[in-house]
Amino acid sequence: MSGHLAVVGIGAGDVRWLTPEAQTAIEAADALYGYGPYLERVPARAEQSRHASDNREEMRRAEAALAHAAQGARVAVVSGGDPGVFAMAAAICEAIESGPPSWRALEVTIVPGISAMLAVAARAGAPLGHDFCALSLSDNLKPWNVIEQRLDAAATAGFVLAFYNPVSRARPWQLASAFDRLRRHLPGTTPVIFGRAVGRAEEVVTVTSLDLADASIADMATLVIVGSRATRVVARPGRPLVYTPRAATEAST
Amino acid sequence: MSGHLAVVGIGAGDVRWLTPEAQTAIEAADALYGYGPYLERVPARAEQSRHASDNREEMRRAEAALAHAAQGARVAVVSGGDPGVFAMAAAICEAIESGPPSWRALEVTIVPGISAMLAVAARAGAPLGHDFCALSLSDNLKPWNVIEQRLDAAATAGFVLAFYNPVSRARPWQLASAFDRLRRHLPGTTPVIFGRAVGRAEEVVTVTSLDLADASIADMATLVIVGSRATRVVARPGRPLVYTPRAATEAST
Repeated sequence: MSGHLAVVGIGAGDVRWLTPEAQTAIEAADALYGYGPYLERVPARAEQSRHASDNREEMRRAEAALAHAAQGARVAVVSGGDPGVFAMAAAICEAIESGPPSWRALEVTIVPGISAMLAVAARAGAPLGHDFCALSLSDNLKPWNVIEQRLDAAATAGFVLAFYNPVSRARPWQLASAFDRLRRHLPGTTPVIFGRAVGRAEEVVTVTSLDLADASIADMATLVIVGSRATRVVARPGRPLVYTPRAATEAST
Repeated sequence: MSGHLAVVGIGAGDVRWLTPEAQTAIEAADALYGYGPYLERVPARAEQSRHASDNREEMRRAEAALAHAAQGARVAVVSGGDPGVFAMAAAICEAIESGPPSWRALEVTIVPGISAMLAVAARAGAPLGHDFCALSLSDNLKPWNVIEQRLDAAATAGFVLAFYNPVSRARPWQLASAFDRLRRHLPGTTPVIFGRAVGRAEEVVTVTSLDLADASIADMATLVIVGSRATRVVARPGRPLVYTPRAATEAST
């Protein structure tokens, strides 16, 4: 078996976040698979085949890429941000587990990338500077009550929260509902950061507070960070700095 | 005020994780500040001054770098992994908040990097493929009972856990105690990953289970990931794949 599969994180948006390891893995591939807009962000090489698919077709894309690699090809699956955080690496692992035994013998490499929460946090200051949770608000693959339990647990225990998939056209109310849920546990002054299309030309970063946070400004390209009781805002010329101190004194609210 | 401060993440260990943005920020600096071993990992330029310090001197390093930038210099603070995750960005923000007003007028850029949890997860498969928490086990800056409350909350709500600072010479018992605490909530078969010095020549990645996890194999260069009830292990030739599926059905234990 000479096939090889790389699951490659290209970072959250800025081409200057594409690591040398990711660049090398993409260049070395015979075939590239991925969501169309991600494939458009990587440099083309004439001899490579390109297989673009919709972002709701993760399992089919994973299976097609694995089947291709099992034929002996060098295949790269291109993922936005980091492939291991709410992205393609888990779908590839699921496909390997449920697929033919030959897929388990494939050489698989996961290439890490700058995940959206790191990119948004960097723009704001250091909101993830102490304990935090990353949580998908999509209830396509888990019941909403599970998400509510996790919001309650994380907020009351003093974790900062980073929300992936906060809204989509098919999921318009989830982010507003999550803010309402958090208002039970956290003061209205708790800092909230909306990072939209960070690293791209259309980037918008908004710093507000939980009582003023308006879910309608978020879209599928937005990552949202909600602070803990410890998170602080430092006023200065321009956008304030938001950070969570390295020291913590209390957990429960 | 022409001074500029960049807080630059150089990634978790492999030079191929140094992003082009980080490389550019380091090259552009007149002065580099950082923990000695991190400074040794970045390329030298003759005209740059280098200011190495001990890893327990974060606040003094932050203040020295800010004072230097306030004189009009281009200063880069070099941080391992991502500067916003248990690293220098929060210390810089703290120093700005408590320092002279002129520091608030400085131009500050945070350059994200490949954090250790992303690097270790990539080696193992996709253990952070669904909701997860990042938690420092250091009780230097927070009481141990706060850490216990966060372990309880995260494990019972179904989050995967990534532990930063699991042990040090001065904190020998914390990781074993955290494993004991988690054994109250999670089955003994829950996957545990130790990633030591990932990306460096001396890298060792160990996959085990919560009932067998031996805290004594961890050191200061180790990041530990503990799965949730949903995390799966896929046997295959060599090291197994560990992943957390994208779908979740239950939260509480």
